[in-house]
Amino acid sequence: MKVAIVGASGETGGSIVKALLESSTPKFDITALTRPASLTKPENLELEKRGVKLVACKLDGPEDALVKSLSGQDVVISALEPAAFGAQIPLANAAKVAGVKRFVPCAFATIAPPGVMKLRDDKEDIFNHVKKLYLPYTIIDVGWWFQLAVPRLSSGKTDYAIVVPENTAAGDGNVPSAFTDIRDIGPYVARIISDPRTLNKMVFAYDEVATTNQIYELLEKLSGEKIDRTYVRHHSPLGQDMANQIHSSQLSADDIETGLAQIEGSDDPTALNKLWILQYLRSCGIRGDNNPEYARYLGYVDAKELYPDFKGNTLEKYFQEVLVGKAKGVYKKRKA
Amino acid sequence: MKVAIVGASGETGGSIVKALLESSTPKFDITALTRPASLTKPENLELEKRGVKLVACKLDGPEDALVKSLSGQDVVISALEPAAFGAQIPLANAAKVAGVKRFVPCAFATIAPPGVMKLRDDKEDIFNHVKKLYLPYTIIDVGWWFQLAVPRLSSGKTDYAIVVPENTAAGDGNVPSAFTDIRDIGPYVARIISDPRTLNKMVFAYDEVATTNQIYELLEKLSGEKIDRTYVRHHSPLGQDMANQIHSSQLSADDIETGLAQIEGSDDPTALNKLWILQYLRSCGIRGDNNPEYARYLGYVDAKELYPDFKGNTLEKYFQEVLVGKAKGVYKKRKA
Repeated sequence: MKVAIVGASGETGGSIVKALLESSTPKFDITALTRPASLTKPENLELEKRGVKLVACKLDGPEDALVKSLSGQDVVISALEPAAFGAQIPLANAAKVAGVKRFVPCAFATIAPPGVMKLRDDKEDIFNHVKKLYLPYTIIDVGWWFQLAVPRLSSGKTDYAIVVPENTAAGDGNVPSAFTDIRDIGPYVARIISDPRTLNKMVFAYDEVATTNQIYELLEKLSGEKIDRTYVRHHSPLGQDMANQIHSSQLSADDIETGLAQIEGSDDPTALNKLWILQYLRSCGIRGDNNPEYARYLGYVDAKELYPDFKGNTLEKYFQEVLVGKAKGVYKKRKA
Repeated sequence: MKVAIVGASGETGGSIVKALLESSTPKFDITALTRPASLTKPENLELEKRGVKLVACKLDGPEDALVKSLSGQDVVISALEPAAFGAQIPLANAAKVAGVKRFVPCAFATIAPPGVMKLRDDKEDIFNHVKKLYLPYTIIDVGWWFQLAVPRLSSGKTDYAIVVPENTAAGDGNVPSAFTDIRDIGPYVARIISDPRTLNKMVFAYDEVATTNQIYELLEKLSGEKIDRTYVRHHSPLGQDMANQIHSSQLSADDIETGLAQIEGSDDPTALNKLWILQYLRSCGIRGDNNPEYARYLGYVDAKELYPDFKGNTLEKYFQEVLVGKAKGVYKKRKA
């Protein structure tokens, strides 16, 4: 099975490529599409050494060249970053012309309906374009990463493995949400893209469902430390600097709405990032969108039902890994 | 089973109410929600005489009153006209609060993906709102009505039963599209709303698939007359009055794009209507969206698979009915 991937050197792309390389049935023939200027980047050279074919290609270049790069590919996977989502339009157009049998647009995140998160809506625009093309597709969502769910301990023991410096929870912390170890995304994707049951479907592939309070309690139990929590402030709009404090504590539904209102029209260069985070908190922590029941309601197929044999990681095992200093974390620069 | 319907006196609503009244298993208890000013309208009094409960209600009024009107209802069906689509937002909100078990937003038309038809996109906005509410729903599409598919004959024999005065076909007339006798919508809806398999699903309920040319040939065979056709004009943009001639012949893909471009920004009061018609022609006749295969791709369940026992009408039988002068047509004022 021939698979082309864009965004192979990112976190999600990396997990996918690793699993495809390790799979024996089916065996995947992997091509990483990369910008001509990035052909000789260390992470691409490393991919090549591991057996990935590198093909230089400009997604915003002439369609003919793109079609040529994609022809013969069974599956095209997009694991692009948000700023590059628009490039999936020419990529999907070319995939249609090339006769690609399955297009996997960039989803790989939490469950949400249209109209709740800008980041999701930007993805929906691509999904809708794919549907207009009548291009065979599979949309894969994976919930929130274990790697972004590790609370901070006052001892600093988890600091090396976390990205967000403060513990943030939405609402009362009792809303269930689905989590996945980023290393399990690849093995799920390998199964999903070679499964005829998932063609033209949305699939929800996750490891475990937990509330924020359960996560706090789990790490407290494993570490023996007490985690600082600020209690929920209902109906207490924050001051002007709210938008700068979104990482600082538990946020009520009102806090989130106030923060979102402050971001609107703001010229803060990090406004978009803050918008994404607050909308994630609202969707996962207040609305409760990111769970298997709501996913099923929205039309998703549940990967746990498709692959009952697959045993993903658990939050408990991941937190133990973090506590003994062996976790890799995410968004860290790789050594060249 | 308790069913509330808005738009009961329209064409689609009328077909649904008739079938629900005639059903014995299950037996439906039907409430027509109507504007206070319309309570004593002849068509509403007739509904009341036939066993439909009339309830005056303002969709844009206080939510409490609307919730009260809907509480105890198992199913709420919307068969509103396009100008009133927005009223489904408070209707859905109230249905959620009232604990309605299934909401059927207004679809009842041809299959199309988002981004191809404004009329469809306006419906998608409502679908998305329903999904944000986590309100149990069923979306039912029915293709194009038999009653709007009858060609004109030079003898004038079909004139009494048709709405569009000229024969219009898109492209080469060879694109298959799905058609349904409007009288079959009700019986389909009665089955669908009492079927647990259709909960939180889109269902495509249609009678027959045919191309425009097959429809012409069928009526030619049955009538013994030859139907006038204008041949496709490829790459020949029409003049300024294109937008006024959309009913006048066969339209190529280019003709349709030209017509749509002319409508954009036009202050013609009928522009919206023309936009809808051209977009229908493009979707059904050029793109080929309105067929069971594409519906399945988009996630629809096929009503023919759900109800193999249901035998709907055929175009042939309907055309025969028209030719002997017994068809009722649509959009005719009913006698008081």
